[in-house]
Amino acid sequence: MHSDVAVLGLGQMGSALASAFLRAGHRVTVWNRSAAKTAPLVAQGAVAAASAAEAQRSAPVVAACVLDYPALTGILDPALSSRTLVNLTSGSPEQARSLATQLASEGVRYVDGGIMTTPPGIGDPRSMILYSGDQDAFAAASDLLSALAEPINLGAEPGRAALYDTALLGIMWATLTGWLHATALVTADGSTAAHFTPLATRWLGPVAGFVAGYATQVDAGSYPGSDATLDVHLATLEHLVHASEVREVDPALPRLLHDYARRAVEAGHGADGWARIVELLRAKA
Amino acid sequence: MHSDVAVLGLGQMGSALASAFLRAGHRVTVWNRSAAKTAPLVAQGAVAAASAAEAQRSAPVVAACVLDYPALTGILDPALSSRTLVNLTSGSPEQARSLATQLASEGVRYVDGGIMTTPPGIGDPRSMILYSGDQDAFAAASDLLSALAEPINLGAEPGRAALYDTALLGIMWATLTGWLHATALVTADGSTAAHFTPLATRWLGPVAGFVAGYATQVDAGSYPGSDATLDVHLATLEHLVHASEVREVDPALPRLLHDYARRAVEAGHGADGWARIVELLRAKA
Repeated sequence: MHSDVAVLGLGQMGSALASAFLRAGHRVTVWNRSAAKTAPLVAQGAVAAASAAEAQRSAPVVAACVLDYPALTGILDPALSSRTLVNLTSGSPEQARSLATQLASEGVRYVDGGIMTTPPGIGDPRSMILYSGDQDAFAAASDLLSALAEPINLGAEPGRAALYDTALLGIMWATLTGWLHATALVTADGSTAAHFTPLATRWLGPVAGFVAGYATQVDAGSYPGSDATLDVHLATLEHLVHASEVREVDPALPRLLHDYARRAVEAGHGADGWARIVELLRAKA
Repeated sequence: MHSDVAVLGLGQMGSALASAFLRAGHRVTVWNRSAAKTAPLVAQGAVAAASAAEAQRSAPVVAACVLDYPALTGILDPALSSRTLVNLTSGSPEQARSLATQLASEGVRYVDGGIMTTPPGIGDPRSMILYSGDQDAFAAASDLLSALAEPINLGAEPGRAALYDTALLGIMWATLTGWLHATALVTADGSTAAHFTPLATRWLGPVAGFVAGYATQVDAGSYPGSDATLDVHLATLEHLVHASEVREVDPALPRLLHDYARRAVEAGHGADGWARIVELLRAKA
């Protein structure tokens, strides 16, 4: 074991991980299915392994970031026994749990990770990587992993990092698409995205504040509409649907949001706030 | 004209506006359809007008915040001629434009406003109120209006404040609902909203950064997927839809987002980034 960490998979993200380990002064072994990608990292000081198995024998911690779970399980080696596998491959909570269970029986210490940044954000302590799984292994690898981003420990349940990762990406897609829809509206009337967007990003500050307040309501199961009621939301959502329709901007997202508000109001919750919608999201179809 | 500003409508928001004007040292006349709501403001130093018309004669600037446009047009008085009406009543861009045109012919200087905060945020300079309409009138009233929130001038087109208001609220509903959906997922697996939400609000920081970068792409009509491609988004959206279905959380929002990504990929844009979706939103149904 001549290295501190081995990195399996040198796509854009895997290369960023290996590079960040090197910049933090760690000894790094790298491996990739097509060997050409190792050259820039070797130039930065990494050791290229001749095979995935050799890489897994080179270090006590093996970080994997490959295409998907089948690609990962295809390269895992018995040498991994007694090592820590930090799996940064994208997957579902169910895949993480299943692999953790299988590897535990083989003596592998399994930590699952969800990377909440793009490759250029790796190595920046303001970025987050979510981890869950073997708590002793995480504690031992924590200094090493802090070279990549702030490590956020979500506990022993191996599927939790993937679940939080998926859930946070869902917020991202909803926000990005809400912003694109808003941008389609204002550009239809002659504005530019460059003019509108600074107001939109500033507005995300108060929106984050609303979210923080509603978290307490969700956990309590009580949704007082003290700031704005669903009755008021429904009336203003009519404006959004109408503004979309007259500009020939796809009204599917506002209609979905309007539909949630309408159903909550029709169920007698018009005096509650927006957080009440969580009950509709939880209801079986 | 014994006052600096008259406030028409003393619901939660109108009362907050009048109170902020008073706290900033302005002389304020107030009027409300049911007179009982004037008492707390009179106790703070306001003058109660006996009628809406009397209020409109009392000051050079009249700020209105009533239920809707019909409620507003029902109380406007010929006395408003040569005055400035700052209309903070919620409505559509089309309603704002139509009223501005009508009132211009009557000699009223019309400024439309969109309040981007809840009543407790009034008086806080971190809050925003969007304005558009008569630029001379806005400039003259700007100091007065800064008692309410930071005044954001969107120019002479009277409908623009309402359009930006609606568009920004659309981002809010999308983000809130994305967060509630994410919260439904993680609480289905035993987490709490209180545990998940600080990560979600922190994550909105990088998401705002993505939005800022994509604004340039939208204006350029070019959407390079240099950070993450639609191919990758589509694959990870599958995880979100699946995670929703197995937890019996309503998959309508992730399915809508997945559908946009799928359509863009099928149209040959799999190597582009998420901002490409704006083209689908602009396409006629």
